[in-house]
Amino acid sequence: MDFKSFIRDVADFPKEGIVFKDITPLLKNPDALNNACDTLAGFLEGKQVDKVIGVDSRGFIFAPMLASKLGAGFVPVRKKGKLPYATEAASYDLEYGTDTLEIHVDAIEKGEKVLIHDDVLATGGTAAAVCELVKRLGGEIVQCNFLIHLSFLQGESKLNHVPVKSLIKY
Amino acid sequence: MDFKSFIRDVADFPKEGIVFKDITPLLKNPDALNNACDTLAGFLEGKQVDKVIGVDSRGFIFAPMLASKLGAGFVPVRKKGKLPYATEAASYDLEYGTDTLEIHVDAIEKGEKVLIHDDVLATGGTAAAVCELVKRLGGEIVQCNFLIHLSFLQGESKLNHVPVKSLIKY
Repeated sequence: MDFKSFIRDVADFPKEGIVFKDITPLLKNPDALNNACDTLAGFLEGKQVDKVIGVDSRGFIFAPMLASKLGAGFVPVRKKGKLPYATEAASYDLEYGTDTLEIHVDAIEKGEKVLIHDDVLATGGTAAAVCELVKRLGGEIVQCNFLIHLSFLQGESKLNHVPVKSLIKY
Repeated sequence: MDFKSFIRDVADFPKEGIVFKDITPLLKNPDALNNACDTLAGFLEGKQVDKVIGVDSRGFIFAPMLASKLGAGFVPVRKKGKLPYATEAASYDLEYGTDTLEIHVDAIEKGEKVLIHDDVLATGGTAAAVCELVKRLGGEIVQCNFLIHLSFLQGESKLNHVPVKSLIKY
């Protein structure tokens, strides 16, 4: 399936000069939604996965579907202050300032195999922070996968040889 | 399945005096995750659904899975300023002030059958705003369904006889 044909370019969002890759045309098409999920799950063929992490908030769209397909549980990683129970936290740099992500301390058992999923791999700061959280809880990262990989931003270099897969690459 | 046994009460979150219903124990258990999805989808048996709306951001967890099971597309409704393309907006009252939700103008075709999904039905303000957005785009609301219905808050009364279903009722 030509997934790129379901991605809409929106100019000047979220700010002037940025061309945003809008995934909503893909999401609203039943065939594209299912094919995208099957393709992402196919990247894990033959691998055991115990937990699938989705990153707040567009990562929540495919991560639970992937968990269901792979026989795994779903774990949300959220922005600071959104998770109700005890958390581990990791910060990462933004263009200006920093942001913080959190995971529940009981979300992953030691030695569990973890798939990390988010919608976009850009500079890699978010994904690197999630990897850090998984390691602190004793999980083993099997793969990071994404709908869209903006490869010219070289985010993969921040992920320390974790296997990276994506549905669409620019 | 006893879904209530997978819900964790967290005291004083997000603020003092509130007991938060934490769904993450349900999400991380593969059987509970799948059973919850099957049960929610079962509420639509025999009904046509073209689009499933998930409400930002915990509504994103089950809505795409439901869309996939029902052969429908997934549509996100988000907080103001988060959707990149042209939107319709509806505001609703909070305890102090108001909040605004948006939907893409091309998310739903006239006459399409729409399922609205969110994690919790509390006072009904959010769900009523989503119903308003669907109607403005010409969609027909088939059902609003929720993981958790806090029935003592009487949110159902705001939804104008739209069928309401939930996995768990308190």
